[in-house]
Amino acid sequence: MRMYDIIIKKRNGGELTIPEIEYFVQGVTDGSIPDYQISAFLMAVYYKKMTTDETVALTLAMANSGDMVDLSAIKGIKVDKHSTGGVGDKTTLVIAPIVAACGVPVAKMSGRGLGHTGGTVDKLEAIPNLRTEIPRDEFFEIVNKNGVCVIGQSGNLAPADKKLYALRDVTATVDCMPLIASSIMSKKLAAGSDCILLDVKTGNGAFMKTPEEATELAKMMVSIGVGAGRDTAALITDMDRPLGFAIGNSLEIIEAIDVLKGQGPEDLHEICIELAGHMLKLAGKGSLEECRNMAKLVIKTGRAFAKFKEMVVAQGGDVSVIEDTDKFEKSSIIQKIVSTQSGYISSMNTENCGIASVILGAGRETKESPIDFSAGIILKKKIGDFVNVGDVLAEFHTNKPDAIESATKMFLDAITFNDKAAKSVPLIHATITK
Amino acid sequence: MRMYDIIIKKRNGGELTIPEIEYFVQGVTDGSIPDYQISAFLMAVYYKKMTTDETVALTLAMANSGDMVDLSAIKGIKVDKHSTGGVGDKTTLVIAPIVAACGVPVAKMSGRGLGHTGGTVDKLEAIPNLRTEIPRDEFFEIVNKNGVCVIGQSGNLAPADKKLYALRDVTATVDCMPLIASSIMSKKLAAGSDCILLDVKTGNGAFMKTPEEATELAKMMVSIGVGAGRDTAALITDMDRPLGFAIGNSLEIIEAIDVLKGQGPEDLHEICIELAGHMLKLAGKGSLEECRNMAKLVIKTGRAFAKFKEMVVAQGGDVSVIEDTDKFEKSSIIQKIVSTQSGYISSMNTENCGIASVILGAGRETKESPIDFSAGIILKKKIGDFVNVGDVLAEFHTNKPDAIESATKMFLDAITFNDKAAKSVPLIHATITK
Repeated sequence: MRMYDIIIKKRNGGELTIPEIEYFVQGVTDGSIPDYQISAFLMAVYYKKMTTDETVALTLAMANSGDMVDLSAIKGIKVDKHSTGGVGDKTTLVIAPIVAACGVPVAKMSGRGLGHTGGTVDKLEAIPNLRTEIPRDEFFEIVNKNGVCVIGQSGNLAPADKKLYALRDVTATVDCMPLIASSIMSKKLAAGSDCILLDVKTGNGAFMKTPEEATELAKMMVSIGVGAGRDTAALITDMDRPLGFAIGNSLEIIEAIDVLKGQGPEDLHEICIELAGHMLKLAGKGSLEECRNMAKLVIKTGRAFAKFKEMVVAQGGDVSVIEDTDKFEKSSIIQKIVSTQSGYISSMNTENCGIASVILGAGRETKESPIDFSAGIILKKKIGDFVNVGDVLAEFHTNKPDAIESATKMFLDAITFNDKAAKSVPLIHATITK
Repeated sequence: MRMYDIIIKKRNGGELTIPEIEYFVQGVTDGSIPDYQISAFLMAVYYKKMTTDETVALTLAMANSGDMVDLSAIKGIKVDKHSTGGVGDKTTLVIAPIVAACGVPVAKMSGRGLGHTGGTVDKLEAIPNLRTEIPRDEFFEIVNKNGVCVIGQSGNLAPADKKLYALRDVTATVDCMPLIASSIMSKKLAAGSDCILLDVKTGNGAFMKTPEEATELAKMMVSIGVGAGRDTAALITDMDRPLGFAIGNSLEIIEAIDVLKGQGPEDLHEICIELAGHMLKLAGKGSLEECRNMAKLVIKTGRAFAKFKEMVVAQGGDVSVIEDTDKFEKSSIIQKIVSTQSGYISSMNTENCGIASVILGAGRETKESPIDFSAGIILKKKIGDFVNVGDVLAEFHTNKPDAIESATKMFLDAITFNDKAAKSVPLIHATITK
């Protein structure tokens, strides 16, 4: 088999066989196929796409290119959740303890922030001393004991995907549905859970700008998951607005705690109940309605919050900041951003809100930049709210005085006003099951 | 400027600006753009093509990426000729002396064989001691003295094209019209002639399989030449059959000499008169009809053959083999290939005829293989001829007894018989001028 022939076959719109795809992934993994052939192939895939069979084969081959985590040491049906990334998306912090409190083990590997979106691992590290790098055996032990542990991706998971992603990132081949789907799902399959719930974000803060694109991606990923023998479902959720009010690492931890305590923003609460409900349903805990009620109940009884504290303790984190969130280190500057316009907020460019928070220090401007855990934005107004000139739109938290001007411009430019209230958009667009 | 943005612009079908194309070619030349970005870009160009403006800009930037040969030391209007490559195409050997004999200087850099097609430099080297690597000053001196010198490409001509071609060759992006056109024309522009005549081959032995494709390529190249200020024209000529009867290096030299002496195959004679006529016309020697007659006259008077001998002598070649072609070294095996079928030859897969001659030793099976100058094929029958079982179709010349079986199979499979004579196809399909 020759890579040249595989490139030309895909270039001409042909459907690759499983052995051809396995040959490709093997060559990517062991370095025998040069980068220039890989990137020419990726560009051909960008134009000619892949069939479901090809995408399943690519995903399985990438999952098998490194460690396949064996979670059988953990008792029970393990359910994983994956979000395609958004602004203010702290749902993992809320639903992992909820699901664990309902008796379903959560052995979760999460990611870091990427571009304008935050990452669960960065957020968890805002809790002083909390460890997100935990050896495999200890990870299993914690899950078996407490029912939950959330760590960073460790080991050699889907190295072929890592290599391909790095190339896609510099060759303008990231935004290609089968490549996105196989990249996400290869890591999920390698991570070893029995069931997978996907939270596919859509809107101006998401990688999928329209519900149609998000639905296409969700369907493809559900097909892959099911094709690989994992019970998989997906929710299409709205990212035309930041989720909740808080954007930034410790600010989001505090908001997640609010929800776990039965307080916090309504939108975040609603989406967390829905996600937790679906995870519990995948784990066979009952009907969706029953599962939603279970999730609500563990919040009401305080068991979800108690589980979160157990998780923090088990991972070495300072639980005192969880018990009293005023103890989180604060930014040296907390600046109110006031409106120069009046009217109903009709849209918020959510990606730009995310970028503004990155400018304030909440994210990485380059791969090596450190994160300022205290930095970020607390929104005071959201879509549909009426605003008068001089009303506070948001609070900026930062330790970078020089950053405020450009972050303010970015943030204010992101908001559009209208003299009529906008029609409210549902938070959850659709549910995709096999 | 970033290569990433250039890739994404082309990927989305945008038209690149001149500075963007210059940035790309500069980065290819100095190695600052990695191969994987170049090959992703080339694949995007494969799908999205390039406008004429983009193609002209790419060609000029590639021409300027290395030495631009300055032919001003040579008196008169210099005319170059380029063939896109065929089987049995020995026209340069015939027309260079014809044109020079008519008083137009020919300072020509030629190429070597590629795949199933032969190359002028390889053919010239079949003449014992003939030098095709000649220093620039001596090259000019020879042309000023004798009016003609044909050498290999020397110096650092269009290094960006060299790099791009090597990548295209392994990433399935060779067969892309603007890339083919700019590759050819960048070298022609760098080679410094005032006028350029292009011989674009079409048919089953050519890279352009149909007259339509060949015409598209020819038009693009003429636009580029004219856009770069060079008087440029193109002929579309037939390559559904080998040109002449001889395929192989010294065999083709002998056939070229026959034509220069007013003998030789009719098709080769016709195309040489047409090409020489157009070259003379580009050089301002008169109307096409007048120029054709001039070309015929120098053959008739023996001045063209005399010019060829002068050229061989000036380049250090052994002129005795030219004066008596029986002195060329012969292959140890000369095998007659007889027909097992009868009927009219309705088609010859010309590419396969070329491959058969390569198998016999006339071309390179790998880049490093030596060439057997004596090896090749002398056709005894061509398209339209009636053949009886047992008639000799061709003579194979080779020093490789083991090669005969596979070459015979390749050759016989290339020929199709029919019980009716095929309609004759014109040798020259069209002429393209600005």
